[in-house]
Formats: sequence, structure tokens, C-alpha cells
Amino acid sequence: MIFKNISVMDEGYNVKSGKNVLVEEGIISYIGDDMPYGDEVYDGRGKILMSGFYNCHGHSPMTLMRGYGESMSLQDWLNKKIFPFEAKLTGDDVYWGTMLAMAESFQYGIVSTSDMYYFTEDMVRAIEDSGAKSNISRSVTNFTGDDFWDLEAAKEAKDAFERFHETCDGRVRIEMSLHGEYTSDPDTAKGLAEYTSEIGAAMHVHVSETRQEHEECKERHGKTPVAYLSECGIFDTPTTAAHCVWIEGDDYEILKEKGVSVAVNPISNMKLASGIADVPALFRKGINVVIGTDSVASNNSLDFIEEMKVFAVASKVRNMDPTVVTPLETIRCATERGALCQGRADCGKVKEGYRADLIVLDIDQPHMIPAHDILNNIVYSASGSDVLLTMVDGKVVYRDGEYTTMDIEEVKARVKESTDRILRSL
Amino acid sequence: MIFKNISVMDEGYNVKSGKNVLVEEGIISYIGDDMPYGDEVYDGRGKILMSGFYNCHGHSPMTLMRGYGESMSLQDWLNKKIFPFEAKLTGDDVYWGTMLAMAESFQYGIVSTSDMYYFTEDMVRAIEDSGAKSNISRSVTNFTGDDFWDLEAAKEAKDAFERFHETCDGRVRIEMSLHGEYTSDPDTAKGLAEYTSEIGAAMHVHVSETRQEHEECKERHGKTPVAYLSECGIFDTPTTAAHCVWIEGDDYEILKEKGVSVAVNPISNMKLASGIADVPALFRKGINVVIGTDSVASNNSLDFIEEMKVFAVASKVRNMDPTVVTPLETIRCATERGALCQGRADCGKVKEGYRADLIVLDIDQPHMIPAHDILNNIVYSASGSDVLLTMVDGKVVYRDGEYTTMDIEEVKARVKESTDRILRSL
Repeated sequence: MIFKNISVMDEGYNVKSGKNVLVEEGIISYIGDDMPYGDEVYDGRGKILMSGFYNCHGHSPMTLMRGYGESMSLQDWLNKKIFPFEAKLTGDDVYWGTMLAMAESFQYGIVSTSDMYYFTEDMVRAIEDSGAKSNISRSVTNFTGDDFWDLEAAKEAKDAFERFHETCDGRVRIEMSLHGEYTSDPDTAKGLAEYTSEIGAAMHVHVSETRQEHEECKERHGKTPVAYLSECGIFDTPTTAAHCVWIEGDDYEILKEKGVSVAVNPISNMKLASGIADVPALFRKGINVVIGTDSVASNNSLDFIEEMKVFAVASKVRNMDPTVVTPLETIRCATERGALCQGRADCGKVKEGYRADLIVLDIDQPHMIPAHDILNNIVYSASGSDVLLTMVDGKVVYRDGEYTTMDIEEVKARVKESTDRILRSL
Repeated sequence: MIFKNISVMDEGYNVKSGKNVLVEEGIISYIGDDMPYGDEVYDGRGKILMSGFYNCHGHSPMTLMRGYGESMSLQDWLNKKIFPFEAKLTGDDVYWGTMLAMAESFQYGIVSTSDMYYFTEDMVRAIEDSGAKSNISRSVTNFTGDDFWDLEAAKEAKDAFERFHETCDGRVRIEMSLHGEYTSDPDTAKGLAEYTSEIGAAMHVHVSETRQEHEECKERHGKTPVAYLSECGIFDTPTTAAHCVWIEGDDYEILKEKGVSVAVNPISNMKLASGIADVPALFRKGINVVIGTDSVASNNSLDFIEEMKVFAVASKVRNMDPTVVTPLETIRCATERGALCQGRADCGKVKEGYRADLIVLDIDQPHMIPAHDILNNIVYSASGSDVLLTMVDGKVVYRDGEYTTMDIEEVKARVKESTDRILRSL
């Protein structure tokens, strides 16, 4: 496929107009002024080609719980709404919920998701069928005090890694996941960390999302969640630490030393009244900051352009400084840094030799005019609907409202069947 | 025009499906199960009909400065970017900038804007041509110590009221505006308040947007901006007080007693790092809270659905309470309360006898599925692009990406001409 006469956001985040871009066998093979030969030509006038977005913290099947229970306290919401609903889920529900999440992801330019949940096999099926990329983890909790390898979750995580890691031509990566400090005992954290190091898998963990969780950990263990998890060995392989709203003091140093990526989820953290992460402090420390939507149950969308805007403006107001977290930094966190966090070092840039995870944005809409600075417009003025095309590994998965890998009407109907059945049974 | 077989958000914010709605001569004349007679029938399946949005604080012509200067301190941004740019504006620039703002407003479901700027005549022309509604004010500042009636702004405001108030079949309302406490002396504030009371106009004023402005007023006058403005008589006619981020103590009581509407601008206030208004406190006091986008120079869009979402989630995190500012309250602030603030008591509801300021939203998109609660989905999951149709006073101004009252390509071209000319001259 050739993108002809298109504006390109290059690896240095400069936008150059009138370029031609060739994609061959999943790879960006040419960017330049010449017109290469190719079967399919896409007219790029009034459009920009940029890297797709890497959503570094999600729980895709929870699309089924979109808007289910709102304006409630966190505990009430979880105990009265989310947990009873989740107890009724089947593998097929998870498959269709994940398919719906992928449809919405493509629509909003997300090419890959770091996705923590359970029913891994069904999530992998959805990734295979939809053509998306996903770093899937089956999260481990331990409320019973069982030994690590007696836990169902541990066995499922091991099984998932052995069966699915680096499948679907590398689109699926299986990670390990400790759900969080507060949902397991130290032996479980250590057992998982040990196994994760042994197999060299990546790790995904919730860290200091709420003040309560953060403070209770200090009471329980005499140290912060970051210090505790680090001592358990959880950060010994490449790790995504989601949230990190309440980290403090030496936590920043530990995260930097261990090379942990921090996935900030601004909308969910605001909506659940958890707080706002200190992104400028993470930047100053040189930590790899990435962006996540969290689940649509607490967002309630996967609009990554909206997430970028809120990421930037929430950081500004939290620090009472309008100069922090620029559009360039925001886009970098959403693309290149997200791909790195997911262990996809050959993704996240429009660069020759990189994998073709690309999106096309319409920059000719009234809300994108004038274009004093195109990066400003993309982060602050663009709408999710400006995504005209989403390509994963060189394959167009979404274009002009149409999906090439799924029957969207069937997805919607099956999701409705699942939610109707579950609601009736509650 | 008949909306056939459509879901309707009624005056009680209940959504009823399968209704037929007749609009005649600008008025909603029938809502019910019968099929009335009409020339044009709109198929409402998979769609919801609700009130359009009332944007209660804007500076429309500043679309010309979208994304012009970003990540700067407020003073640098104003002095180095905005003020020099504004010094070059002509009436035609303002006309085309306002036209672009109306195009974007319609696209995002805004039917009416409380719009503070200058070049009022050119703004009125744009409102007349676009078919929008607007409460326009020519804001008064006094940096020279001149007597009130020697001020150019005072004369222009008087002239605008006399020539344009309640023109365009009532779509244009002219309000008076004191720009703010910190940009005028007491005599100017009192002079404007006196004239405003004399003619019975409404008032639009910036109040306590930044901490600096709020604290400096206390030093200057020994009282808060709210107390000061109230004593100057600024709140003696129906008033919109924009921002109110830093109000405190008795300010709430004064605003309530004087019947002032407070226009909260969450995205702009976050982006400029001004702070987050305490919406739950305003609600508790029974103050009429409304929502504004502020200018696109500090937003940088007019996506009112995004603004509603940020209004809600910013309030939750500010108060560290996820239960405050519900979707129903948010929609009410965006519609019915906004119309009241603008002195349009017969607007803002889908109710027989009300003026037909209506929008149609697509509720069949992947990101709106499932629909456990449609109000939750509208505030948190909808995208600006879900607005399929916008109607003002019974006239369709926007439908499926097309504008009926303007040549959007001309608007875009003229805006580009204006900004190019101004940038060249700087």
C-alpha cells in the first residue's frame, strides 16, 4: 500500500507534507518524495500519517460493563456492580467484549493494548480475529493464602505464556501480572516474580492507584508499594506499573533504576476520584511514561485522542504550571514510548524499517483549522473521529467507519446478548 | 419536520424510545406516539433527540488563534502571542473567525454561545448568516483612567445594545460585559453597572479565574472579586460569572442571593493551570451552574461532549469523591440551565411549546454499546462526532457533516487568508 502525497509525522515529530510512503509485508519500506510502485494507492491530501497509539493499560472485556453503575463510591461500585457482573462472565462473553474493545480501539487509532484480565484464551482469539496487537496478562491475586503454584491464576498465567506468547505473528505477547500489592501476600508476589524472571516475561502491575491502597501498604509492610514490590522482585523484568498516582520520595528513584514504565490513566483516575499522577516529576526522573485508558467501565471510552488531551491538561493543573507536558511529549508517550513499554521496539514511529502500525488523521476539518502548530491541534483540537484509517502490521483494520476484520453488527448483537443474559441472571 | 421513531430525552431527562416529534415554525409542537403530518420525515432509529447545548462562555473569533502559542506561562502567552495577534484583527477577520466557531459549534451540538469579544457588528453578521444563537457582549476594560462614557468600549457596547439586541428573530441578545475586576477601576465598574441596570441588560464578567487575580483583588480592595463586583452593582441584572475557580466563603452566598449563573470552563482552566472550580459547592448552594468552552485559543476545541465529560471527572477528582456531579446534573447544566443563563427560558428542553433547539445523537456506534444507562453513555462515552444533526429554532443548520447555512470551504479559506495575513504582519 502506498500513502500518496500525505503529511508525515516523522521520527523526530516533525510534520512534512507531500510525502509518499510505501508499506510492504508489514514494514514501512520507503518514505520520500519519489512515487514508489504499489498495488493500492491512498490519497493523502489534507491528511496526516502518524504512528498508531499504544494503549498501555486496559481491561478490554470490561466494555461489557460500560456505564454500568456510575457516581458510586469505589467500594460500592466494585462490590455491588462490577464483581457480581464479572462472576457471570463466560469465555464467549470475554471474546465479544474484547472484539468490541478492538473495534472501538481501531476507530480511535489504538493499534495495541496492554490488557490485564482473565479468560486469556478467549482474549487471544479476539486479538487473532481482529488483527490487533495485545500484551495480554492473566492477573494473579491471592485472597486465600494458598501456595503460589496452587493458585488457579498462576497455572493459567503459565499456560497462557507457554501457549500464546509471541503468537499471531508476534502480535500477541503474554505478560505476567501481579494484580497489585493489596490483593496478594508477599509469598505470592515473590513466587510470581521468580517464575517471571525464570521465563524472562514482562510484568504488568497496579501500583498506588488510590491513596488508601498506598497508605495501607505502608502500614502493612512499613514501605510504599513501589519499595515493597521492588523487594519482592516484581520489577526484575521489564515492567508496566499502572497508575502510580500516589508514589512519593524514593519511589521515583526505584522506578527509574529498575527501568519500569509508568502507565498513567488520567481519565479513569479522575473519574474514580483517585487523583492525578505527577507526570512532570516522572519526566524529570527520566522514567518511561506511557498512557492508558484503563477499562471503559471507568473511563468510559477508548478515545485515545481525548486521553492525550486530558493527560496534558490534568498534568498542567495538578502542577499549576501551563508549561509542563507539551503536545510533543504527549504524542511521544502515546506512540514511541508506549511501543517500547510493550517490548515492541520496532514499532511506534513512522520510520523506514519500522513495522507499519499507522493511522491517518483528517486535518482538514473545521476544528483543525487554522494549523498554527499541527502537534497542538492533534493533542488539543482533534476528535477521535478524525481517525480515518488504522493499520496494524501493514494490514488496514479500519477505514472510513468500516472494519475489515470483523462484522461490527454481529459484534454489537453478541455483546447485547451477553449483557442481557448476565443482567437477567443477577 | 418530523423526527420519526426516535428516542427522546424528555424534560425530566428520561429517555423514551419510539417517539414521533413534530417541529413547526421553530417550535416543538408535538411529542408522542401518533404520527403527525409533515413535509420532511427524519428516520430516528438508533438515534436520540435531545436539547442542543448552550455554551455559556466563549470568545468565538479566537478560533483564529487555535493552537497559537502553547505550553507557555499565561503572561508570556498573552503578551507575546495573543495580544499582538489581536492588535491586527479586522472586522472581516472577526466575521470569518466567528463563522468557523459556529461551524465547529454546530458539529458538536452547540446551538447558542455567550460570546464576549469586540467587533460586535461583525459577530452579529456571522450569527445572522450562520443561523446560530448568541448572547454577544462587547467587554469593557479601562487601563487609562478615562471616564466611563469616554471609553470607546462603553460607546460600542451601548451602540451594540441599541442596534442589535433581540435581533435576528431573537437569536441575538446583546449583553453588557465588564471584562473583569482587574482590568478596570471601580468607577468604570459602577458606570457600566448603572447603565446596565438602566437598560435592563444582562451582564457577563470574568471572576476569580486565577489565584493571582483573586488574591490581588483582596489586596487592592480588601475584599474578594465577587464581593467587590457585587458592591459595584455588577450583579444587579441577570449575570453570567465566568470561571469562579477561586471563590471562597461568602462569595457563594452573594452569587446565590444575586441569582448569578456561574459558567465553569473546566478544560481551559486545566490547560492554563488556573485550577478547578468547586462545582459540588455551587450545586449545594443552589447556584445556576452552566458550562463554557472558553476560547479555542485555550481549549482548543468546541467539543461540548468532551467538555461535559471533563466537567464531571474534574469535579470528582477535585473533591476526591466519585459520587459528585452525575451525568444527569451535567446534561442539565449543558442544556436547560445554560438556556436559563442566557435568558432563553423557552429553550433547553425537549418539551411541547419549547423552541426547537435540538440535536440528534447516534447511539448505535461501537463506543455507545452496551447501553446500561444512556445518560452515562452520552456524558462519558459519546464522541463529538456522534452529533448527526443540529437544529436552531427549528432550522437544520448541520446534518451528517454538511452545513446548510454556510459554505464551509469558503469559511476555511477565508480563515486561512486572515491568519496568513496577520502572521506575515507580525
